[in-house]
Amino acid sequence: MALLTEDARGVFVISVTPFHPDGSIDVESLDRVTDFYIEKGATGLTILGMMGEAPKLTQAESRAVAERVIARAGDLPVVVGVSAPGLAAITELSAAVMDMGAAGVMIAPPGGLRTDAQITGYYAQACAAAGDGVPVVVQDFPLATGVSMDVSVLNRIVADLPQVVMLKHEDWPGLPKITALRRAEAAGQRRISILCGNGGIFLPEEMGRGADGAMTGFAFPEMLRQVVDLCAAGDMDRAQDIFDAYLPLVRYEQQPGAGLAVRKYVLAKRGAIASAALRHPGALPAPETVAEVERLLARLDTRLKELD
Amino acid sequence: MALLTEDARGVFVISVTPFHPDGSIDVESLDRVTDFYIEKGATGLTILGMMGEAPKLTQAESRAVAERVIARAGDLPVVVGVSAPGLAAITELSAAVMDMGAAGVMIAPPGGLRTDAQITGYYAQACAAAGDGVPVVVQDFPLATGVSMDVSVLNRIVADLPQVVMLKHEDWPGLPKITALRRAEAAGQRRISILCGNGGIFLPEEMGRGADGAMTGFAFPEMLRQVVDLCAAGDMDRAQDIFDAYLPLVRYEQQPGAGLAVRKYVLAKRGAIASAALRHPGALPAPETVAEVERLLARLDTRLKELD
Amino acid sequence: MALLTEDARGVFVISVTPFHPDGSIDVESLDRVTDFYIEKGATGLTILGMMGEAPKLTQAESRAVAERVIARAGDLPVVVGVSAPGLAAITELSAAVMDMGAAGVMIAPPGGLRTDAQITGYYAQACAAAGDGVPVVVQDFPLATGVSMDVSVLNRIVADLPQVVMLKHEDWPGLPKITALRRAEAAGQRRISILCGNGGIFLPEEMGRGADGAMTGFAFPEMLRQVVDLCAAGDMDRAQDIFDAYLPLVRYEQQPGAGLAVRKYVLAKRGAIASAALRHPGALPAPETVAEVERLLARLDTRLKELD
Amino acid sequence: MALLTEDARGVFVISVTPFHPDGSIDVESLDRVTDFYIEKGATGLTILGMMGEAPKLTQAESRAVAERVIARAGDLPVVVGVSAPGLAAITELSAAVMDMGAAGVMIAPPGGLRTDAQITGYYAQACAAAGDGVPVVVQDFPLATGVSMDVSVLNRIVADLPQVVMLKHEDWPGLPKITALRRAEAAGQRRISILCGNGGIFLPEEMGRGADGAMTGFAFPEMLRQVVDLCAAGDMDRAQDIFDAYLPLVRYEQQPGAGLAVRKYVLAKRGAIASAALRHPGALPAPETVAEVERLLARLDTRLKELD
Repeated sequence: MALLTEDARGVFVISVTPFHPDGSIDVESLDRVTDFYIEKGATGLTILGMMGEAPKLTQAESRAVAERVIARAGDLPVVVGVSAPGLAAITELSAAVMDMGAAGVMIAPPGGLRTDAQITGYYAQACAAAGDGVPVVVQDFPLATGVSMDVSVLNRIVADLPQVVMLKHEDWPGLPKITALRRAEAAGQRRISILCGNGGIFLPEEMGRGADGAMTGFAFPEMLRQVVDLCAAGDMDRAQDIFDAYLPLVRYEQQPGAGLAVRKYVLAKRGAIASAALRHPGALPAPETVAEVERLLARLDTRLKELD
Repeated sequence: MALLTEDARGVFVISVTPFHPDGSIDVESLDRVTDFYIEKGATGLTILGMMGEAPKLTQAESRAVAERVIARAGDLPVVVGVSAPGLAAITELSAAVMDMGAAGVMIAPPGGLRTDAQITGYYAQACAAAGDGVPVVVQDFPLATGVSMDVSVLNRIVADLPQVVMLKHEDWPGLPKITALRRAEAAGQRRISILCGNGGIFLPEEMGRGADGAMTGFAFPEMLRQVVDLCAAGDMDRAQDIFDAYLPLVRYEQQPGAGLAVRKYVLAKRGAIASAALRHPGALPAPETVAEVERLLARLDTRLKELD
Repeated sequence: MALLTEDARGVFVISVTPFHPDGSIDVESLDRVTDFYIEKGATGLTILGMMGEAPKLTQAESRAVAERVIARAGDLPVVVGVSAPGLAAITELSAAVMDMGAAGVMIAPPGGLRTDAQITGYYAQACAAAGDGVPVVVQDFPLATGVSMDVSVLNRIVADLPQVVMLKHEDWPGLPKITALRRAEAAGQRRISILCGNGGIFLPEEMGRGADGAMTGFAFPEMLRQVVDLCAAGDMDRAQDIFDAYLPLVRYEQQPGAGLAVRKYVLAKRGAIASAALRHPGALPAPETVAEVERLLARLDTRLKELD
Repeated sequence: MALLTEDARGVFVISVTPFHPDGSIDVESLDRVTDFYIEKGATGLTILGMMGEAPKLTQAESRAVAERVIARAGDLPVVVGVSAPGLAAITELSAAVMDMGAAGVMIAPPGGLRTDAQITGYYAQACAAAGDGVPVVVQDFPLATGVSMDVSVLNRIVADLPQVVMLKHEDWPGLPKITALRRAEAAGQRRISILCGNGGIFLPEEMGRGADGAMTGFAFPEMLRQVVDLCAAGDMDRAQDIFDAYLPLVRYEQQPGAGLAVRKYVLAKRGAIASAALRHPGALPAPETVAEVERLLARLDTRLKELD
């Protein structure tokens, strides 16, 4: 399969990992949700990320999931999260998934990093650990990792590490960072792909600032695709109309921790996975939550009809 | 002026502190913005909170701001933020503002608290420091303070400290916390007022869960008031229609740190304050930000007309 | 091999993992350092802890290290660190090492835990994940984990989870915690073993408060053993004389991060391992550091002769 | 009084703030402890630091304490801690104490700073806030502040901000930082004074690396002075002999939080202050603690006699 490059754009959906109610991996749903994402417009997939409950899997399970999804995704590029506390584990998983045909790997910084030098030093080590020539996605998500990367740090990483071809952008607030990165490129720096996370909650503005698309797991990937395509085509108003229709649900699904149960509930309801189950410790949404989500889904339906 | 009680409901607007471009306090705008909030439907005001740039003021300035706003607000209850690293500073400011006619004080936990016992212990000390009989609002805002309060901790605070009459609820995700608190009350616990922060981004759901209103500083307080009133009257659909119209801006203004510059920009544009200036270190919004905000304001205008 | 019980006492040495200069595991030194620890008075071993560079190993390497050490240690109980971000990984490693003959497993809390309920909830899950009947050591090390456990939380864990037989105590300051735990036991709570970490820097006082021994990796385990034995025999003065002689080095070796390179340097010098190498990223001590350590070793030598 | 310069060396004792048992400031003890520090060899004083319980004072109390100590200290330079969440408070207190004759001010970074750019930006603002020409001491104490400053950040601060004349060094581990700073100076960077904190627990090594002395509050300042003088005179062995004698107590007093009660207990016992009381919330040492301290003091006495 083709490797990830700086030219990547579109929508890389962060895939859930489907489980049976007993906590075992639901392999058939893994196929089904892969098909679902593709059908709804995904231009790539990202697996074994935080929202894929990756830390809950054993290494053997992680490899099995990767193998299944990569095979099923066919020509679609699949990025695999390989973040780990140690470099040896990154090397092991990265080598395995690249052999299976992954397009690249995604690495978030370990929580203890503080200074600029620690962060740039870490990415040099992590790129080496990922393997020579393996495309790397840098995940910049301070709310989850506790690590803050200044624009100058990202610029240094881009300058020093040719393997880094993409930024998964989910700093918050993060809009000025996109502008600053694109300005550095206009001044001669190597261009990288910027795909945005955070559930897509700033997607129109991010596209306006120069992002190349989305890398997030919202349960209606077709919205992400439409917004990205419309923005890319310059039709910002229509993009924002569609975005605004989904925004109440985007907001609800973006709640840290709690959002994943909602996402799986919606995906199960849409038939993409058989069960909304999270692996332990994780629970089905409470009845109050289900009622709120159902209300938002009904209103979404109405609003989309008005927009047609 | 009347003291704050467990029966408080409605919209307590978190007031900005207006500055001249040179960084000095703009006293006339302080009057103007107080009038503006009242005119737009505030049922109370909260001053010297994080969004009021309180940590940037000297103690003398804090007292001057409190005196001016309390006088201007007339019968409207004014809650004053008195959070401080030490208890003596809490005592001093609390005594001063209660003398001026404040309705109560708001206290956020210091960042170093970790265990349940540390948190309940702190609030016992802080209530004593605030002064005998002074109504206290507990601010539960983990994203800003780093302190996580379990529902059982809040229940213990309510049980042990009769001075605590209100929760400023801005945990995220926090909806189950409201449900749990109201359930504890149904089981016999003393009822307290719950007003919600976080820029109002979950206001309809929070009202549905049993909140009494909002305590936040969104630049269109009339939205907060309409949503709270409609929810209280049981018209959830109309409430959500109005909320959804404002949501793209609510979301934009809720960005940590960056949001305050946007809020002041909008308030200045609406004539509520003379200048959007933040006190140093703080800056006017960048041109890209202004363009995005203006676009959201124009779309809001259109959407509100459709809703009429 | 016998399982770990609440009666464990003495010195469980936290074992280093020896590497060749190229970063591969030095299996012969693994045997040698195991023999060394036993010869110097270890009554147990703890492997795959933070100081064993466990996060730098792959899962296969972790299992290989455990197998080798458990076999070599013979009758000596071996505790294996199985801390992991997810429960499935704990289950997998715990089952493997218990099969090999480990005496129990040690689990530190994941960094994100904050409230008392989160911590007690986690240990319930972690004990279940470790496996029915598997003895569990709770590692209480806030400086490294960021998780603060109140005494009441530890009491609840002891009351609720019979699998928990030992506390690895390294809160700082932590002396009152030992006193409080022993008081709770005097009042009827189940007694657990308390072994102390932190490089042993408070060992005499910890023993005086009721600790059962040490679980730490100081490069002179014979000091730990002598101090523990003398304290247990009531000879506090001789215990402190010996402790004080080593204290300048204890203090130096306890430096977070930097201390491990020093420890390995001393162990290599003492012939316990072939190379002082740390696995990447980790480096040999700088020349200034080596000079300081050599000076402390020379002074230690002199001081021990004075004490004889 | 003379201003602090880059040439400062010796022992700046971090002064306690004495309280009566009822929590009010004990002004007579303030004089007495000032005299005590001078008598025991202090070459300067630092007041209103963390160990001076500064956050527990009102601004008026802070100014009163500063005025009293500066007057009493006569020719001895007095550094005043002016750290505050906002710049206006720094300006206010800095102006006040410099007027009283302070030698300079000390500023620790606010806890939220993460990136190198945030830290250097903050010190530029803080120096401006402290006032033109006011000598500034940078406090580098990550364990307490949560802010990590790379050597390159310190170098940039030294290069950009001529007001910064001293580093209060208490990173842990921090020895390589002293070496790196002195190397940068050897390569042409402006030299600053480096005084070391952390209770003095690495003082001999710090002096060996090029520090100019100590800035800490150990209850036996005469030890700090002797060690600094002996190291400066090149008699490292005698310095270490004296240091080692006190080390068991240094270690005990360095416990975060708990150590201050011990320090005040010892100072009261030595007659330097009338009461060991801490201002609320803070408590006298528990009986077990007192017994441990008394034991260490008795042993210290014996050991010092052996050394004579």
